[in-house]
Amino acid sequence: MAAVAVVGYGTVGSGVVEIIETHREMLQKKTGKPVYVKYIVDIRDFENDPYGDKIVKDFSVVENDPEVETVVEAIGGRRVAYEFTRRALAAGKNVVTSNKELVAYHAVELFELAKANNVRYMFEASVGGGIPVIRPMSQCLAANEITEICGILNGTTNYILTRMITASLSFDAALKEAQALGYAEADPAADILGHDACRKICILASLAFGTQVLPEEVKIEGITNIAPEDIAFAAAKDCRIKLLGRAKKLENGKIYISVSPFLIPTSCPLSTIDGVFNGVMVHGDSVDDCMFYGRGAGKLPTASAVVADVIDTLRTCGDDRRIEWTAGDSIVSDCRKVAHRYMVRVNGNTDAAYAAAEKLFGEIEVIPCSSVSIFDGAFITAEMAEEKLLDTVEKLTAAGVEVKNQLMLM
Amino acid sequence: MAAVAVVGYGTVGSGVVEIIETHREMLQKKTGKPVYVKYIVDIRDFENDPYGDKIVKDFSVVENDPEVETVVEAIGGRRVAYEFTRRALAAGKNVVTSNKELVAYHAVELFELAKANNVRYMFEASVGGGIPVIRPMSQCLAANEITEICGILNGTTNYILTRMITASLSFDAALKEAQALGYAEADPAADILGHDACRKICILASLAFGTQVLPEEVKIEGITNIAPEDIAFAAAKDCRIKLLGRAKKLENGKIYISVSPFLIPTSCPLSTIDGVFNGVMVHGDSVDDCMFYGRGAGKLPTASAVVADVIDTLRTCGDDRRIEWTAGDSIVSDCRKVAHRYMVRVNGNTDAAYAAAEKLFGEIEVIPCSSVSIFDGAFITAEMAEEKLLDTVEKLTAAGVEVKNQLMLM
Repeated sequence: MAAVAVVGYGTVGSGVVEIIETHREMLQKKTGKPVYVKYIVDIRDFENDPYGDKIVKDFSVVENDPEVETVVEAIGGRRVAYEFTRRALAAGKNVVTSNKELVAYHAVELFELAKANNVRYMFEASVGGGIPVIRPMSQCLAANEITEICGILNGTTNYILTRMITASLSFDAALKEAQALGYAEADPAADILGHDACRKICILASLAFGTQVLPEEVKIEGITNIAPEDIAFAAAKDCRIKLLGRAKKLENGKIYISVSPFLIPTSCPLSTIDGVFNGVMVHGDSVDDCMFYGRGAGKLPTASAVVADVIDTLRTCGDDRRIEWTAGDSIVSDCRKVAHRYMVRVNGNTDAAYAAAEKLFGEIEVIPCSSVSIFDGAFITAEMAEEKLLDTVEKLTAAGVEVKNQLMLM
Repeated sequence: MAAVAVVGYGTVGSGVVEIIETHREMLQKKTGKPVYVKYIVDIRDFENDPYGDKIVKDFSVVENDPEVETVVEAIGGRRVAYEFTRRALAAGKNVVTSNKELVAYHAVELFELAKANNVRYMFEASVGGGIPVIRPMSQCLAANEITEICGILNGTTNYILTRMITASLSFDAALKEAQALGYAEADPAADILGHDACRKICILASLAFGTQVLPEEVKIEGITNIAPEDIAFAAAKDCRIKLLGRAKKLENGKIYISVSPFLIPTSCPLSTIDGVFNGVMVHGDSVDDCMFYGRGAGKLPTASAVVADVIDTLRTCGDDRRIEWTAGDSIVSDCRKVAHRYMVRVNGNTDAAYAAAEKLFGEIEVIPCSSVSIFDGAFITAEMAEEKLLDTVEKLTAAGVEVKNQLMLM
């Protein structure tokens, strides 16, 4: 018998209990022993819960029960989750989590604590919800040097952008719709400002490049300033605007890492990922581009990834296949020095405005777009570093052409 | 030191040697020991080969060398590859392969032989080339009951169909182009008739449903009868035609399995997979839809999947995580009884033809398409089993309306 404890009985935690309890036969077949949820830890009361007999309020019951082999941490955040994870590992129990914040900030010390106690700390569900990403990257692509990761890592923002593109909604209208459907929270800041995607790209970059990258090192830009006019000009250029987490190895050995909206050509599979779906594209030196696609959030998809890790902890015997990284000097390069092409949207679709832009930017590619108002124009620049772009935008403004937005091309 | 032998020095075999020999440091980091290619077995002569000193002609050298831990079988086919795989496993060596034909036909006995000798038989590269599919399905989706697999599993046919769609080429012209570019062989039969995709969907179905499915049990239809008019009518219906390997659990507990061209709605991510790329969509009861995308063939992508398996065989110690299935009574249902909607293309875009069709098929949906000649019409039927469809098509022909093609909708 293998006893599992689920700590935190919210959306993900209840999904984990549901999958384990309704797939008992399958889990026994895959682990070689019966698997069951022995405890559910939550300080709240749950009346008439079908698994009410398993609920305890005190984590130390789990900590002190030698029968519990694996603890699922489904609390979230960095406070209680951090403390309980440390205590579980120290008590010789494997810990499985979907907590991207805790993994992004504290993975290295938790890996070390797990190793010292001969147990494992696993986190497949922390990125991409139910989509297999962590294990494929570390095992299936093990023969590759990974050079770039590029992902739509947040379903809320992808839903909003998709609705702006397909239904011509404004940002505000699309956000309200997402909230009404339960895809966005009442306080949507963590999603729309890019912080959620930031934690996930940090985890992927740390895994791919072997050294911890912290959220504070990442340049973050959300989607709040994307206007319908940006969407329209992007479409005229055969592109769609998506919020991407990107991490790319540079020639100087360091990495470019950012969370930003990008114009993606419609020929790129990432451009076709719509609604709440997520997708992660990985470039390896041998395999070229691979992409993993699916539901990046939600009760059962996320719980399915958690339970896959639970199965792994229960059937592993003497295997030292650890998925981890180490701390070290920062590997993050100065983003402002990395060159991109930009779409610059200006106030006025006139020859005079484009002539002024050409004078300052050098060669530009004007985007013809009859479907946007005559008060908007847009052009694509040559490759230039962000600091140069900002400097030139300032000069263009001084020359009397108002710049309304600038967005990078992928 | 871990010694590897590569048997068969063709495209994949030479890619494997290249990756192992140029990524030594990375392999050592991942396996905990230096990894090197000790032997390359091939009966052919290779003049001035950089790894010429490793080439031997006699497989028994490998078989009798206790230092060789893992053998890469990159011969292909079912004759010599079968014999050498058996001998290697019997000699206590792990075997890693990209040989879909051997896996599709002989996996069960090879799994048993591997287990009896306490070694492993691994085959990630046999489906989807470099795309991680086998391991994600069996490990990351372990908490799911998989209910459907649907994949673009053959790059040659996908290239041909893509060119027919995007460049309006005929089948013959697209095939010639694929041959000129090296994407299709001089004798393209195994690809264009669907046999290659068939072996792959057999492997995926066997893995997902736990019981061996043999290629002979699968209904196969290639792409040779797809005409530009089919492509045009599909486009008018917002669909693209792709060759799909499909395996789906039915209510009767058995499975539907086929290799056939399908009309796929452009809203489905599979429809956007173009050129030589492959994609596999998997539906699990908890995770919903996931998709894995990438290069389904080619020297380095395929070799990268082989080497990932090699790494796995070398670092596993005492782990019994076997990826396998067993033989058993056939789980394949009679395909002709499974209902689909069909696009039926007829000779003549006239009211009379559609009226005749409506009389026999019941309600139909005529596809308006001004870009196709007036000699072609097409309509979508309600759901019906294949045997009913064929019967009704016969009646329509008897009523004077020539049926030019019929294609299933996904």
